[in-house]
Amino acid sequence: MKRLKSTALALAMAAVTFGAQAADTPAKPHSKAMGDILAESKPTDWRPLDPENTLYFELPAGRVVMELAPAYAPLHAENIKTLVREKYFDGLVILRSHDNYVVQWGDPSDDELDKSNPPKSQGSAKSKLAPEFTVPISAATTFTKLPDFDGYAPEVGFSNGFPVGRNPKTKQTWLTHCYGAVGVGRGNELDSGNGSSLYVVIGNAPRHLDRNIAVVGRVVQGMEFLSAMPRGPAPMGFYENPEQRVRINSIRLAADVPAAERSNLEILRTDTPTFAAVTDARRNRHDDWYIAPAGYIELCNAIIPVREVKK
Amino acid sequence: MKRLKSTALALAMAAVTFGAQAADTPAKPHSKAMGDILAESKPTDWRPLDPENTLYFELPAGRVVMELAPAYAPLHAENIKTLVREKYFDGLVILRSHDNYVVQWGDPSDDELDKSNPPKSQGSAKSKLAPEFTVPISAATTFTKLPDFDGYAPEVGFSNGFPVGRNPKTKQTWLTHCYGAVGVGRGNELDSGNGSSLYVVIGNAPRHLDRNIAVVGRVVQGMEFLSAMPRGPAPMGFYENPEQRVRINSIRLAADVPAAERSNLEILRTDTPTFAAVTDARRNRHDDWYIAPAGYIELCNAIIPVREVKK
Repeated sequence: MKRLKSTALALAMAAVTFGAQAADTPAKPHSKAMGDILAESKPTDWRPLDPENTLYFELPAGRVVMELAPAYAPLHAENIKTLVREKYFDGLVILRSHDNYVVQWGDPSDDELDKSNPPKSQGSAKSKLAPEFTVPISAATTFTKLPDFDGYAPEVGFSNGFPVGRNPKTKQTWLTHCYGAVGVGRGNELDSGNGSSLYVVIGNAPRHLDRNIAVVGRVVQGMEFLSAMPRGPAPMGFYENPEQRVRINSIRLAADVPAAERSNLEILRTDTPTFAAVTDARRNRHDDWYIAPAGYIELCNAIIPVREVKK
Repeated sequence: MKRLKSTALALAMAAVTFGAQAADTPAKPHSKAMGDILAESKPTDWRPLDPENTLYFELPAGRVVMELAPAYAPLHAENIKTLVREKYFDGLVILRSHDNYVVQWGDPSDDELDKSNPPKSQGSAKSKLAPEFTVPISAATTFTKLPDFDGYAPEVGFSNGFPVGRNPKTKQTWLTHCYGAVGVGRGNELDSGNGSSLYVVIGNAPRHLDRNIAVVGRVVQGMEFLSAMPRGPAPMGFYENPEQRVRINSIRLAADVPAAERSNLEILRTDTPTFAAVTDARRNRHDDWYIAPAGYIELCNAIIPVREVKK
């Protein structure tokens, strides 16, 4: 009686996993499930992470791997890399964990959360940056359109492994606030975000933030070390008591980490037929558990598969 | 320099809070922010939770308050109440926490996760239930349409405080898988879910589950006690090691709890002009932080305000 209840639900749900878990129930003959599609993918369907644009966010609980998309926020990506190379984030803290929203980190003293200490020096990083909330479409690397309707952008799709929106009329494109998106905190002044305080989306996609703040990349592994962080007790998830704040061991650029200590990950190229097939398998689920395929996929429900490769 | 960076971001983000937090930045004269709208609401804009349809899910970390919507799954709601009244869940466990997806609980022995013990008796609860993945529109209490496009349903909106989809052609309606939705785990057989294993959505809305499984209600307070639970290390977030599983203290119907121990909560009525104003304030943000209002709101990004009232 219902012995496989949660297991079957879990299997039916497997394709929603954030990241690379590809387990799925057997596909019916007329279609393929995501796991089968990935199992049959070609080596050229995947690309490695670029060590020059990959950050290792080392927390006491484990490593969070973030990929930067410099084409979408070149000044911000560069400034973050400067901060990282000068070890700015080492010893700083998680400032807040706001349920169904974001986890944000930085220097409490830079944020008026803690006035007892002077802010940490930001070294040679710039203190202000021109806003990069959108960029010209011509600056983007690739664009593979998702045919499904989106309410937040005239067009949505994928660009080199990132979910993006774009507006052909204004000729602008931008990274979207899907689960795992990494953004740059800013004040009311549009140039006030410089990468010294970053956030990651941990809830239902807050797409209304799109085009209002600079998104610089996304988490590709270790998301659970951020998303399962206890929510802060103060309004908006802030940790008022310094003892509640998780300390950041370090943030490093993968290129600066010895090869043996790197996370060797590959991303499924989003301009391949394999990725289109994965997305379609999620648009219309064919396994035995589903009785009503959605016939639609919302941008942030698409999965951009990540896999670990042997060194 | 950027002193208010994360604070300002936080304020701009406040309206996205799951639940009742209503802090917001000052509104420009031509519009109102959510906090102001709620501050000006009338007592009749709110309704209390019905103790006969409110569950207190008592975890070691705190109380999760769930509201059942029996109009949308009458057999399932009734069976869950039978299980609860016979204390079925007391001492059972969280089975899994799957990042960006669901937290699910129940009896590991009923799920073949633990074959060393016999399943716990389900008392007088029914072991199978006819599927209630959708119900006739005529069975729903109210429907306030959201004018914004939705890709997963011909129409979406709110019914007595729950986000719903509906199809005028088939004359069916259903509760949607927004953040905090409470659903009934099932196996491949459509009648195999009986409420003895439940899940809550903790990630980006998995709307493709809509119409494939019975949703019975939603979490209205204490969501963070579920969403911040450490993710299970096994595939799909399962806790394979019994020691990793959080034990459920109890689940009780509010009506069975002494009045002094109840959580006195009120829900903003979703068929009021106040709720329409709140939703519009979130569709087009007017505070000084935003430069590009979305002009759109996705169903699961709407907030259904909850407030605590003095006893």
